[in-house]
Amino acid sequence: MTARDANPARPIAAIILAAGKGTRMKSDLHKVLHPIAGRPMLLHLAAAVAELGAERTVVVTGAGRAQVEAAVAPLGIATALQAEQLGTAHAVLQAAGALEGFDGTVLILYGDVPLVGSATMRRMIETLQGADAPTAVVLGFRPETPGAYGRIIADADGRIAKMVEAKDATPAELAETLCNSGLMAVRSTDLFRLLALVGNDNAAGEYYLPDIVMLAQAEGGASIVIETHGDEVAGVNSRGELATVEVSWQARRRAQAMAGGATLIAPETVWFAHDTVVGRDVVIEPNVFFGPGVTIADGATIHGFSHIEGATIGTGAEVGPYARLRPGAVLGERSKVGNFVEMKKAVLGAGAKANHLTYLGDAEIGAGANIGAGTITCNYDGFFKAKTVIGDGAFIGSNSALVAPVTIGAGAIVAAGSVVTADVEADALCLVRPPQTSKSGWAKRFRAAMTAKKAGK
Amino acid sequence: MTARDANPARPIAAIILAAGKGTRMKSDLHKVLHPIAGRPMLLHLAAAVAELGAERTVVVTGAGRAQVEAAVAPLGIATALQAEQLGTAHAVLQAAGALEGFDGTVLILYGDVPLVGSATMRRMIETLQGADAPTAVVLGFRPETPGAYGRIIADADGRIAKMVEAKDATPAELAETLCNSGLMAVRSTDLFRLLALVGNDNAAGEYYLPDIVMLAQAEGGASIVIETHGDEVAGVNSRGELATVEVSWQARRRAQAMAGGATLIAPETVWFAHDTVVGRDVVIEPNVFFGPGVTIADGATIHGFSHIEGATIGTGAEVGPYARLRPGAVLGERSKVGNFVEMKKAVLGAGAKANHLTYLGDAEIGAGANIGAGTITCNYDGFFKAKTVIGDGAFIGSNSALVAPVTIGAGAIVAAGSVVTADVEADALCLVRPPQTSKSGWAKRFRAAMTAKKAGK
Amino acid sequence: MTARDANPARPIAAIILAAGKGTRMKSDLHKVLHPIAGRPMLLHLAAAVAELGAERTVVVTGAGRAQVEAAVAPLGIATALQAEQLGTAHAVLQAAGALEGFDGTVLILYGDVPLVGSATMRRMIETLQGADAPTAVVLGFRPETPGAYGRIIADADGRIAKMVEAKDATPAELAETLCNSGLMAVRSTDLFRLLALVGNDNAAGEYYLPDIVMLAQAEGGASIVIETHGDEVAGVNSRGELATVEVSWQARRRAQAMAGGATLIAPETVWFAHDTVVGRDVVIEPNVFFGPGVTIADGATIHGFSHIEGATIGTGAEVGPYARLRPGAVLGERSKVGNFVEMKKAVLGAGAKANHLTYLGDAEIGAGANIGAGTITCNYDGFFKAKTVIGDGAFIGSNSALVAPVTIGAGAIVAAGSVVTADVEADALCLVRPPQTSKSGWAKRFRAAMTAKKAGK
Repeated sequence: MTARDANPARPIAAIILAAGKGTRMKSDLHKVLHPIAGRPMLLHLAAAVAELGAERTVVVTGAGRAQVEAAVAPLGIATALQAEQLGTAHAVLQAAGALEGFDGTVLILYGDVPLVGSATMRRMIETLQGADAPTAVVLGFRPETPGAYGRIIADADGRIAKMVEAKDATPAELAETLCNSGLMAVRSTDLFRLLALVGNDNAAGEYYLPDIVMLAQAEGGASIVIETHGDEVAGVNSRGELATVEVSWQARRRAQAMAGGATLIAPETVWFAHDTVVGRDVVIEPNVFFGPGVTIADGATIHGFSHIEGATIGTGAEVGPYARLRPGAVLGERSKVGNFVEMKKAVLGAGAKANHLTYLGDAEIGAGANIGAGTITCNYDGFFKAKTVIGDGAFIGSNSALVAPVTIGAGAIVAAGSVVTADVEADALCLVRPPQTSKSGWAKRFRAAMTAKKAGK
Repeated sequence: MTARDANPARPIAAIILAAGKGTRMKSDLHKVLHPIAGRPMLLHLAAAVAELGAERTVVVTGAGRAQVEAAVAPLGIATALQAEQLGTAHAVLQAAGALEGFDGTVLILYGDVPLVGSATMRRMIETLQGADAPTAVVLGFRPETPGAYGRIIADADGRIAKMVEAKDATPAELAETLCNSGLMAVRSTDLFRLLALVGNDNAAGEYYLPDIVMLAQAEGGASIVIETHGDEVAGVNSRGELATVEVSWQARRRAQAMAGGATLIAPETVWFAHDTVVGRDVVIEPNVFFGPGVTIADGATIHGFSHIEGATIGTGAEVGPYARLRPGAVLGERSKVGNFVEMKKAVLGAGAKANHLTYLGDAEIGAGANIGAGTITCNYDGFFKAKTVIGDGAFIGSNSALVAPVTIGAGAIVAAGSVVTADVEADALCLVRPPQTSKSGWAKRFRAAMTAKKAGK
Repeated sequence: MTARDANPARPIAAIILAAGKGTRMKSDLHKVLHPIAGRPMLLHLAAAVAELGAERTVVVTGAGRAQVEAAVAPLGIATALQAEQLGTAHAVLQAAGALEGFDGTVLILYGDVPLVGSATMRRMIETLQGADAPTAVVLGFRPETPGAYGRIIADADGRIAKMVEAKDATPAELAETLCNSGLMAVRSTDLFRLLALVGNDNAAGEYYLPDIVMLAQAEGGASIVIETHGDEVAGVNSRGELATVEVSWQARRRAQAMAGGATLIAPETVWFAHDTVVGRDVVIEPNVFFGPGVTIADGATIHGFSHIEGATIGTGAEVGPYARLRPGAVLGERSKVGNFVEMKKAVLGAGAKANHLTYLGDAEIGAGANIGAGTITCNYDGFFKAKTVIGDGAFIGSNSALVAPVTIGAGAIVAAGSVVTADVEADALCLVRPPQTSKSGWAKRFRAAMTAKKAGK
């Protein structure tokens, strides 16, 4: 073991272990694909690794490999199969082929430890590449109840004297509060050399990754532990733990949104997705759910009971209560989408309003248009979707059905209750309505007859 | 006092005390009828007692007896009146008549201590019927703040030396953390014999049930305390305590649902009823409320803001957001009920869809049918309800009103905006629509006139 | 310093400091105007001061003064400008002009410490006016983490020996847990005389209000500290703290509602406004949001996911789920407003029902009327609002549009799907509907054509 030059530009690779069965999830969906904040756990890690600029990422698969491969394939992430579950050292070793020819820092991550951020990963890498370059950097944490976690015995500088499984630990070692998260950074050449030395002479007959720390020590190589908060390395083995990690993610995100100048009247009732963007002086009432793909510009108000995904909300726009915005909903500046309104692939121009009981799908609505209560864009004939275009300043009377493809010209008025099947020219009045008729006294006679019938029952 | 043979088959009776006024509830509804998880407290106990196979159950009533009697009458549960509130021993004694001729184990329960489960009740009974058969088995618990609870002084085996009210306790006795829940199991013959000996020589002039423990001791009979968690014996004397018990019930149920393989993104925002059945790989988004009578098959998704009661949700079905399913809603496999849709006594066939702003009441919808946005089944004429039948694969255009009784044949298409009053044959197109007319420039003139009028104001 | 006569009738004035920038809020809205429970923080204090019967109230403004002045002007509250931020003593001094000629007790409050109630204010005043009349009464509290709060060194009777900033405190002083909230009551003549003596010989070069306590002491005048709970004096400097204070306010209000005899199944999901009035035996399901101006009479039920503001809900009425009641909604006794129904400036008579998917705006609905699903009152023509009047016992068929101004007579029936533009006489049947036509086999041919087209793609 010789000293190395610190090189922050040394290439990075990540190995993400995802071969476990995840039996306690009781799910047909692979454990690492269960979402946190609307994104599969595995992809949270993939995103963090991408932020680091990792050259290569390898996911080690096993049980349910087809699902995992399908999830990472679009990202150009390699996979390596661990056919048998022989322990974490064995799992990491399966990535050797995929990292053939790679010389740099390898981060070892776990698909079911999804919240580790790129800042912590970077700290691990920088420590590895530091002046006193150690062989391995281990990520430790101090849980409230250390319990069954492996302990790390280290000095004040983080220099590791020993890593020990809880079941093998002495009482003095068990009294240590610094625990092993399992995450490591190791130089590739060291990693695979040491992995080849790991044995399985233990009760479970498994090859344990932490053993490389003691093997490195035997060679004269030091290992360093750096610490993070327990929330960041929380693992998910059950739906209960999934919910706990979700809560932890949400709490952090809500605090960020508030620190950035958004009012959350009841923060714990607002559910963000991993990519929600929230502007300044945005007000979010209690009970709002964000799916992925939402951007909210400054000064917008999101009233309660809104369910929003894939939507872009303009400056000063007003949404809800009970607005359901689906992918492709785009709200212009100061536009309003009110209660019991659904939008999908629909653009609402600046200042336009759709305040009540409306469905806008595959539609373009011009600036200042007013969409009356109960308006439906009939965008589907059972086979194809078609588009509705409504011009600037048009007024759609209540309870109208606009049968797409159809264009309502700028400034046109559609009378209430119309079923519009042909284009309406600008500034015209469109009327689709039979005459109103009245039968005097009919209701009275009907009531008498029905009352008699009911009594006769 | 002689040894008895342990007989697990000895008959069981339960006495549930429900005579209290419940003044702090400030309610016209009797305290024990306030619901937890959608079921009156008293009926939670009745259900647990029924699981035990109790031969007889007697509810001791007093204030508001008519309400209580009406609630338990359908279950064949007897009631006994405590005309005056003279203490718990006196209350139990009122059940003597209803238990005339019964020889077996009597459980004493409290209508306002609703969460005691049949497992704990069975433990009490088995302890009473054990080898060292005691006279009485008392259910104890260790609250965080023992405060005003009566203390139980017992040895490590649970053998009770003394039971003492907090106000009569010595400092040493007050330091005991084991408290009396009030629940007891006693053999019927012992119970009524001892109750007859209880006096009311105390400050309140009441007859106290716990006194039978010391009376049994005077006869040489032992009493045993067994312990349970404080949550199980939490009492309800106010709406605040009602809410606390609800939270405790919900937390337990949510954990069960997750352990069974359901994802609850935000467990604390999902409210189950006492009988909700949740399948595997069911996903429930934040903010879902279940009333009684709901079954969710495997793989179904319940989006947020859904309010569901009396509904059966098929495998892989998708519900909400904002779905309101009322009693009699039945969703076939992979069917979809979307936003702002209400169903009541309505069956949706496999793969059928009602995605937006629809009311389906008293309806049968065939497999694969597509119900357009804004469809209303007009099932009520002010006097009678009538039925709508929609065949397989039919397509109901948006904003249609189907005036029941009416049948839409399989594969038929109803054009948007139709008010259908007569049956539509299979594969036909039904059209109820006047011609579209247009008045050029009308809207422009209208705007000019209105603008002038507004300015003139 | 001489003894004074205790005079509970001595006039009261309040100075509310609101000159701070509130940078951490990151908002264009002045910090003290951010709402708690639907009311700006500053107006919570103004309301408490009004309850005390204060003769004069002065708000000291600085940054964003125009917003603050506009908010308090309608209440007849004076403002005084603090042009430079030279410390709290300097800020209070700016109010001298506005209190010219006032001789009585001055309360010093902070616009960003909004939850101080009139009871606590009264306690401060009464202590000031007590037999041993002190010069100043300081409001103290004991936070969980005293941290950077100024400490109050006082004897068991609250007689203050010293007030010291945390940064100037000795270790012994830092160990004191009694902290200074900043709030004070001082007689006007003492206040302004002492303020004139305060210097700015400190690190920040600011004039500190607490200095008047030591200045009074130098004159031989005593100061008294009285204590309150930390929640009452929680300050708001960020959106996170705003949310914390909101939670604290809501928790208190929910407990009050339950103590008053309302059932909140999930109290933490019910959001009250500052002025919500809740009757006895009201049941509120999970997830209900109240904006300002709501009164709920006894026995009403509010189902989940309801959003209610400015509404009056009658005895035994039933609301929701998913009811959106806006200002001017008035629900008669035992009336029902069901799912996906919006009401605005609309009166629903006793026993009337609007159960599904309806918009009632600018409407009067008679007793016992039945509003069918999908009914829309067309109350807006793009320029003016107009009114819909529906008589007692009328029946509006589903999917009808009522084009205001229009009157439906008592007992009349409007057939489903009608667009009603002319008045309907009492007891008549109104029908606006073209004949139903059918094209046999059309749907089948359409499907064949579309299937071919789709395949051809």
